[in-house]
Amino acid sequence: MNIEMIRAAQARLDGHVRRTPLLRSAFLDDIAGRRVWIKPECLQHTGSFKFRGAWSAVSGLDPAARARGVIAFSSGNHAQGVALAAQAHGAPAVIVMPDDAPRLKIENTRALGAEVVLYDRNHEDRDAIGAALAAERGLSLVKPFDDPAVIAGQGTCGLEIAEDAAQAGIGQADVIVCCGGGGFASGIALALEAQAPQLRVRPAEPEGFDDMARSLAGGKIVRNARLSGSLCDAIITPQPGDLTFPILARLAGPGLVVSDSDALRAMAAAFLRLKLVAEPGGAVALAAALYQPDQIEGTDVIVTISGGNVDPDVYARALAG
Amino acid sequence: MNIEMIRAAQARLDGHVRRTPLLRSAFLDDIAGRRVWIKPECLQHTGSFKFRGAWSAVSGLDPAARARGVIAFSSGNHAQGVALAAQAHGAPAVIVMPDDAPRLKIENTRALGAEVVLYDRNHEDRDAIGAALAAERGLSLVKPFDDPAVIAGQGTCGLEIAEDAAQAGIGQADVIVCCGGGGFASGIALALEAQAPQLRVRPAEPEGFDDMARSLAGGKIVRNARLSGSLCDAIITPQPGDLTFPILARLAGPGLVVSDSDALRAMAAAFLRLKLVAEPGGAVALAAALYQPDQIEGTDVIVTISGGNVDPDVYARALAG
Repeated sequence: MNIEMIRAAQARLDGHVRRTPLLRSAFLDDIAGRRVWIKPECLQHTGSFKFRGAWSAVSGLDPAARARGVIAFSSGNHAQGVALAAQAHGAPAVIVMPDDAPRLKIENTRALGAEVVLYDRNHEDRDAIGAALAAERGLSLVKPFDDPAVIAGQGTCGLEIAEDAAQAGIGQADVIVCCGGGGFASGIALALEAQAPQLRVRPAEPEGFDDMARSLAGGKIVRNARLSGSLCDAIITPQPGDLTFPILARLAGPGLVVSDSDALRAMAAAFLRLKLVAEPGGAVALAAALYQPDQIEGTDVIVTISGGNVDPDVYARALAG
Repeated sequence: MNIEMIRAAQARLDGHVRRTPLLRSAFLDDIAGRRVWIKPECLQHTGSFKFRGAWSAVSGLDPAARARGVIAFSSGNHAQGVALAAQAHGAPAVIVMPDDAPRLKIENTRALGAEVVLYDRNHEDRDAIGAALAAERGLSLVKPFDDPAVIAGQGTCGLEIAEDAAQAGIGQADVIVCCGGGGFASGIALALEAQAPQLRVRPAEPEGFDDMARSLAGGKIVRNARLSGSLCDAIITPQPGDLTFPILARLAGPGLVVSDSDALRAMAAAFLRLKLVAEPGGAVALAAALYQPDQIEGTDVIVTISGGNVDPDVYARALAG
């Protein structure tokens, strides 16, 4: 993995990705005690940053492979990203999803033209299911995070952050990134290393699913004890990736860990102060910035809102907070 | 009023206004039966387009008058816009607000440093209250819509729409604008007349408060029968403005009228498909585009989401729809 792969992904994404802005609200600055800059990837196509990596991967396939189709397994956001990227390229897409994924994400994925295959995430192995289907139909597997093309695509968000931070006059700062397997965080970290080395990625994870924070602290990959039971469904993965972990071990600061209740509070803050819809997993970075200010250094902090695909009942719960 | 005033306002707003994008969702296109382009002014500072007109007016005052302070009367969004614009200029601000305005808007206005004076909108005359306070303290009145500097500020949104529509390759199209007194609609109409004459403004209003639609249809200003009782509090005014009506009579197409229930449905659509928080009055243009497709012509339609300042309980009602 290197910066040239991210620049190549940016060229393939040009004209297809939505260039998201860097937003601020004085009300959020007051809560955090520093300037808070928001990278709203909930405004990205399909409502999350995952579109970047998916487009990067699908557009990078050779035409014959792309014509046979792609397969992906995902709790939802990667699914929608791959479905839309495949549809736009005229390629068939099969998406393997856990049967407890939010209804909305399943419906959206189908509406984007993909074939959805459901599995039980407590009793079945999604990797095995995906591999079998891929072999049977000659599909190319688009992994959710541990894939160079996917990491490169997510890294394009880091290039945008570097550019906008320079324009905003942001000096040294933490960039808090919502983290599951680490594709988004590692892609951004590589982009910042090249373009804005004074900005440092800090992964943010849900409490009880802080495999990346613990892996970074211990210097080796460790697994989560559980694989379900958080509101932050979008960013639960068994363990850091073999590609993503070394990148973050080299470039990232310590991980931040956020409770479900703080994720809900951050969703309400994004509603009130930014007029943005954040999903629980997409709000953990903002939650860390707002409610753990003593874990962060400097006069500025940049946070990703990684996605906004949340069922209305969960959202109503955040607002009722 | 002319385009040069809008260009001058744009120069004063440069570096202070948020340049909002033009967004799309294939899901919304499917509902509307044409391409739907969204101008999300809910992402503007203070959560509505009103910041544009307020900044234009406050920045256009002579320095001595600005130092004495400004006064505004508003159901909320204009209030917040004026409060922030005044605060940023170091000028005192007094805001006269109806006592049934959403709590959030009253709180936000105070948090932005303004003095809030409440009145009963069924029994008191806000113009008289405002005029008396202005005279007493030497404050400059920033009217909510019927003021050339305010219309010019709102028109800057039209310049952005013209620019982005050209880049997106949009030909002839209706531009549906959420309409109260007509400041936003008339400013945009003037900007489009100069920069994109193939785009035509259509004001959208809440059912029962369609003074602009009826005034346009009859060729003379008529009043609303009531002044409260809609969810769309942000865009209820007694009648079209003396400045705004002639502009829209000359440039706008027929008005569109939207039920509260369709405004709520459009809020839910913005939540699901755009990850944007729209307030009821801010969603009427989107509602018209989605649910009254036979009232609109052409392969493209542009709609404003004029604001996102909505109390959580009303929002939860929209999502429960």
